[in-house]
Amino acid sequence: MTATRTVQEQANATALERIVASDPVLLDLRAAIEVVPGMRRETILTSGAPLPWEEYAGGQRNAIIGGALFEGLASDPDEADAKIRAGQIRVEACHDHGCVGSMAGIYTASMPVFVVENRTYGNQAFCNMFEGPGHKRLNYGVYNEEVHQNLIFIQDVVSPIIAEAVRASGGIELRPLMRRALHMGDELHSRNTAASLLFSNTLFPALLDIAEKKPREVRQTLEFLHDSNYFFLRLSMAASKATADAAHGIEGSSVVTAMTFNWRDFSIRVSGLGDTWFSAPIPRVEAKLFEGYTHDDIAYMGGESIINEAMGLGGFAQAAAFPLQAYSGGSSDELVRRNLAMYDITLGEHPEFKIPYLGFRGTPIGIEIHRVVDTGIAPTMNIGVAHKGGGQIGAGVLNAPLECFRAGVAAYDQHYRA
Amino acid sequence: MTATRTVQEQANATALERIVASDPVLLDLRAAIEVVPGMRRETILTSGAPLPWEEYAGGQRNAIIGGALFEGLASDPDEADAKIRAGQIRVEACHDHGCVGSMAGIYTASMPVFVVENRTYGNQAFCNMFEGPGHKRLNYGVYNEEVHQNLIFIQDVVSPIIAEAVRASGGIELRPLMRRALHMGDELHSRNTAASLLFSNTLFPALLDIAEKKPREVRQTLEFLHDSNYFFLRLSMAASKATADAAHGIEGSSVVTAMTFNWRDFSIRVSGLGDTWFSAPIPRVEAKLFEGYTHDDIAYMGGESIINEAMGLGGFAQAAAFPLQAYSGGSSDELVRRNLAMYDITLGEHPEFKIPYLGFRGTPIGIEIHRVVDTGIAPTMNIGVAHKGGGQIGAGVLNAPLECFRAGVAAYDQHYRA
Repeated sequence: MTATRTVQEQANATALERIVASDPVLLDLRAAIEVVPGMRRETILTSGAPLPWEEYAGGQRNAIIGGALFEGLASDPDEADAKIRAGQIRVEACHDHGCVGSMAGIYTASMPVFVVENRTYGNQAFCNMFEGPGHKRLNYGVYNEEVHQNLIFIQDVVSPIIAEAVRASGGIELRPLMRRALHMGDELHSRNTAASLLFSNTLFPALLDIAEKKPREVRQTLEFLHDSNYFFLRLSMAASKATADAAHGIEGSSVVTAMTFNWRDFSIRVSGLGDTWFSAPIPRVEAKLFEGYTHDDIAYMGGESIINEAMGLGGFAQAAAFPLQAYSGGSSDELVRRNLAMYDITLGEHPEFKIPYLGFRGTPIGIEIHRVVDTGIAPTMNIGVAHKGGGQIGAGVLNAPLECFRAGVAAYDQHYRA
Repeated sequence: MTATRTVQEQANATALERIVASDPVLLDLRAAIEVVPGMRRETILTSGAPLPWEEYAGGQRNAIIGGALFEGLASDPDEADAKIRAGQIRVEACHDHGCVGSMAGIYTASMPVFVVENRTYGNQAFCNMFEGPGHKRLNYGVYNEEVHQNLIFIQDVVSPIIAEAVRASGGIELRPLMRRALHMGDELHSRNTAASLLFSNTLFPALLDIAEKKPREVRQTLEFLHDSNYFFLRLSMAASKATADAAHGIEGSSVVTAMTFNWRDFSIRVSGLGDTWFSAPIPRVEAKLFEGYTHDDIAYMGGESIINEAMGLGGFAQAAAFPLQAYSGGSSDELVRRNLAMYDITLGEHPEFKIPYLGFRGTPIGIEIHRVVDTGIAPTMNIGVAHKGGGQIGAGVLNAPLECFRAGVAAYDQHYRA
């Protein structure tokens, strides 16, 4: 038993070391088909542990159908449904393709994705782009002419300009931006204001050059960035995914390397337990809703931005982001209390991501499944909240269901301690 | 006595209302001689209540002499000293010219100053420009070839570009930037990182245009802004001065409208007591010094950035800026405790400048001299700390001496209650 412990401890130390040593760098923006492994013309990626097509429902189903229409894979929802049933359109899970999806997380072949490389370990991760400040977005289950035009604008104007600026900058190291943003009121999940500003500032010298030939497009891109306080979320997600993947697959490690949800289930993956998802139904979210909405209006449609929590951000850094009270509710004391609790279920503290209020204590990293089960403390996550008819209607705090950690522990103990 | 109280209360309500309603807008950058009232070719403005020339000493004296040399008013320190004694060079107080000085606060005729207009009341205030991130600066009592070249660079390159961008933007409202910065870890005195970023971002669209004709200068300006986390301090100072002046001169008001220090004395002005400075020796600063320095190395050389504290920022908003622990010392609890104490000596809370950690409570505004004396709680200020040989060696917290508030109360009671 002692020997097993030691193997586990060593494996977890390795996982933690890999999280800490990861160095995610934004290299490019490219169409998903060009860079995402296994992506085909007819693939649609969506958030959460994969489900049989018949089991997708509500906003997430609408978003997948919307993705098919946007990509021109079908001309109406019925045709899209038929083609998916026939296997002519393939619905797959983001995580299985190095991607993470925000909310429903729809990726289609032509959509531009951020290409983030973990410079330390060589692996790449991807995230598609924030759709802008409107509440109606494809990733919130809405597809109409306005959403379509906005996606085209991002594809034709914003992405090429940012891509050119990123390439001209020789790639952009994301960790320094994230480190600074944590000192400026962001926890990099429900609040990305500072990081988005820092990112824009970093691009500006390159944008000056590009503006010589494309003044209108650069101006439109700057306007888009200016209006998009959440722009950086997709970059922190790709950074976290590139980091988490480097810590995945370590024999004997009981560290969580992904948390995700589809419209129905919350699921986790564990470093030493391969690609199995341990799932449980999503519990009730503690939300602050926009004016005029009630809890009955809430619908889940997936979400993988919680990869940030798995890597010590978001709910695990919420004491860095007191302005969140206005957005997702709660008091400063609650933010601090919830943040502190996360140290009880993690194995280490991040040496660079620090929380000023906690005397610059490093954010808690390395969620260990036995600790979660033993303490009964669930990982806490800051999430956006969608309307059952689509669109964002608020934000809140979700505590992970303990059942999936129990399932993980059972599988771990059977595999490693039997 | 009841009648007197009512007059005082009404006068203070007016002062408070004027602080709250002030709307400082950056209109331009111009040479001091062109815009500062009463400024002449041979004027040098310095921080603090004015002293006879013989009484200026140390770094502040060096800075004044440096100003004379920079402006070409004398060719060496002895000549500068002789000309000042002869009245050919005039040393005057910043506050008497609508200006506020950072540290020694040297203004000479050719130096560019921010022109900030209080759009509500029509009065203007001015502040000269941050000298950049180096620790050796004229306002920290150092004048040498490097400092000279840097001032020339600011005058010839940075200021004209920013001026052009500001004018092209049709003026820049400062309050919205300050409001947002308080949600991003700034208290706008010892920390201005977010406000400086927000300001740069606001200028971008105009800088794109200017770059078409002056690409090199725009790039140099962007580099300067990028390296200058304290850039915005001078703008918040000018905004606070424009605000404070609007609340000054209200018959019967016992609200503090300026705090300042020269190298020797800390002084306050009171709205209803004209231009009299109530002074007392500067107490010991609680400082965190850069590596290798001790408390014996500290020298005072003036400082008027504490106009920000008088208007509810800096030490009065320190619970908005937990990252300050790394810069000026203290714990989060101390920052909160010191900030909360300021509500006991003020009359109101700012409706727009809010502190996220305190549940978005407005910052304490309207320091009332009787409250300071009755409670024995001194205004707390976040200040930069200078070396006796010149240059910055740290930052810290200074509590105002109570004697000047007692002197203010004595004068007030004699004038209004006798």
